[in-house]
Amino acid sequence: MHQADNPFQSLAAPWIAGLTPYVPGKPISELERELGISDSIKLASNENPLGPGVRARAAIETALAELGRYPDGGGFALRRALAEHHGLSPAAVTIGNGSNDVLDLIARVFLQPGAESVFSEYAFAVYSIATQSVGAKARVARARDYGHDLEAMARLVTDRTRVVWIANPNNPTGTWLAAAPLKSFIGALPKTCLVVVDEAYTEYVSEPDFPDATHWIETFPNLIVTRTFSKAYGLAALRVGYALSDPRIAELLNRVRQPFNVNALAQAAAIAAINDPEHIRASVELNRAGMKQLTTAFERLGLAYIPSVGNFVTVDCGRPATPINEALLKRGVIVRPLGNYGMPNHLRISIGLESENARFIAAFEDVLAS
Amino acid sequence: MHQADNPFQSLAAPWIAGLTPYVPGKPISELERELGISDSIKLASNENPLGPGVRARAAIETALAELGRYPDGGGFALRRALAEHHGLSPAAVTIGNGSNDVLDLIARVFLQPGAESVFSEYAFAVYSIATQSVGAKARVARARDYGHDLEAMARLVTDRTRVVWIANPNNPTGTWLAAAPLKSFIGALPKTCLVVVDEAYTEYVSEPDFPDATHWIETFPNLIVTRTFSKAYGLAALRVGYALSDPRIAELLNRVRQPFNVNALAQAAAIAAINDPEHIRASVELNRAGMKQLTTAFERLGLAYIPSVGNFVTVDCGRPATPINEALLKRGVIVRPLGNYGMPNHLRISIGLESENARFIAAFEDVLAS
Repeated sequence: MHQADNPFQSLAAPWIAGLTPYVPGKPISELERELGISDSIKLASNENPLGPGVRARAAIETALAELGRYPDGGGFALRRALAEHHGLSPAAVTIGNGSNDVLDLIARVFLQPGAESVFSEYAFAVYSIATQSVGAKARVARARDYGHDLEAMARLVTDRTRVVWIANPNNPTGTWLAAAPLKSFIGALPKTCLVVVDEAYTEYVSEPDFPDATHWIETFPNLIVTRTFSKAYGLAALRVGYALSDPRIAELLNRVRQPFNVNALAQAAAIAAINDPEHIRASVELNRAGMKQLTTAFERLGLAYIPSVGNFVTVDCGRPATPINEALLKRGVIVRPLGNYGMPNHLRISIGLESENARFIAAFEDVLAS
Repeated sequence: MHQADNPFQSLAAPWIAGLTPYVPGKPISELERELGISDSIKLASNENPLGPGVRARAAIETALAELGRYPDGGGFALRRALAEHHGLSPAAVTIGNGSNDVLDLIARVFLQPGAESVFSEYAFAVYSIATQSVGAKARVARARDYGHDLEAMARLVTDRTRVVWIANPNNPTGTWLAAAPLKSFIGALPKTCLVVVDEAYTEYVSEPDFPDATHWIETFPNLIVTRTFSKAYGLAALRVGYALSDPRIAELLNRVRQPFNVNALAQAAAIAAINDPEHIRASVELNRAGMKQLTTAFERLGLAYIPSVGNFVTVDCGRPATPINEALLKRGVIVRPLGNYGMPNHLRISIGLESENARFIAAFEDVLAS
């Protein structure tokens, strides 16, 4: 719908006009119906192909007994479990309906018309959306080798910058920042600028100099670290994420948080999942093997890919990816084209089960050869 | 935490300072531990004591197979089911993480500093919170007999008013508006003003002149009707609600909506629940009998109550309700004091199972006599 066609837009806050109208994608079942297929595989959303572990599943079963009751609005038990896990106070925790919700809360509290946020080219799309949705200005630093260029980002910080968004590792590129430069960057920011380190994929990373920014919260009062249960914890269906920060920041975020933003099953599942390191180990091991499976195939096919520490890998098709993606869809293989990230030749492949990865590789090779 | 203690508040949008800091309540399990009890009953949150029906439960069980997968971001099947149920287009539907989320989306799109919203004294608290959270001004009309006074509300509408919030029936009072005056009120509003009719409790109402405002959406383009699955449908734990409106309004709301705001189990459960009228009938019948049980007791005790068409009833204790509430808590009976609504002598009792209502009545009588 064009803006000119919508008379209600004149009643909306002026920055709403600048937001891209939401175009919902079709669910897989509809896509299969249209394509006349029934056995598609989805390697498109960086989900854990194993789903949640047995502890989380058991906690969900127990919580089903109280479906008619509101969730705990304060997230008492979940915040306590997360605080214990991280060695922080429950007052440092803000829970969200996925980490998307937490990123949105940060924007609603600290950004507004006249304020600015800074992030990198190719960074996770929600930083831009959250910034624009509250009428603030996004300043985008050029990337270096598809990764965050911290020097370029620092140059964009002004006295109007309230939030710097950093994904570590970044989605959709899988690039990452080492501890020393990231710590220097944060330490050099003005005190009027918050920095959000989004660690959605942290569980997958094994590089020795990869930081755990939650350890820096007591060092840098302007630091917010976000985490999610949608990736390695395998709970994407339920929506639960959180922020860790100075309790005074959390207190402000909680002023805007909807009290029942995290549903009861998600709270129960997350408490169980955070105490199930065995499932994370199994998921990370599966991912490591699958990453090797995919990158070996890309090398064999002579295709460049962006080295990734996440549960996905982004490959350069060497030509426009849209027709390749469409041909994959017809073969029942769903991956993520990155045209909306300004990467028209790239496809992002989430690591699946061994059999799913193999099916993608065979279909991809077939499509590239045709 | 006092504002002066929080240096981060100076970095926040100015209206954040005016928001009441969130003080999470204790979950029942913690309350029981502190009071040394173990068998408390909760008649405090207007939940359906039966929970969801068998169809919704079966749909949830099926959806448990895909916990690792993101929900359908477009809510394709849910919007289609809701559209069919209401005889509208899927483009008229905006889905929310509870109806609270939808109310929040409306505020984020149509309210901003300089804009105003209008609602009634004693109206549902979220209208005030949503208005303030985006820096808009709330104009509150005096109530008449605890109900919405539409004439008083109309007098507060100016050319800065973008949203009028109406709960029908209203929580926490249980009062309601008949079709004719509500329709006249909406028809007389300026076209620059949207009106939200929040029908969270509509399924419980049997009065013949009670309106279904969803039938008026094609008549009044500035009308938004909100519904929830947290009350009669018994799905409060899962968080799902929706708005029906002109598709051009829905398109704007969806620009701000987080794509995965409604979790996968909630979507599956809601589709099943909307097609299970038998469970609604059973729930409404239980509520009717329980309402009679409570109001008969209040009459016997010589206590005034606000006649309610919802699944709760608000009683005037004739003296400050706080000590009465505390004495009830010690007896394991959890109800809702209404001091924060400016009703310090009132308690709101949600209708429970027959045995729960009886236990409340006995405890209440005991406390009043002591």
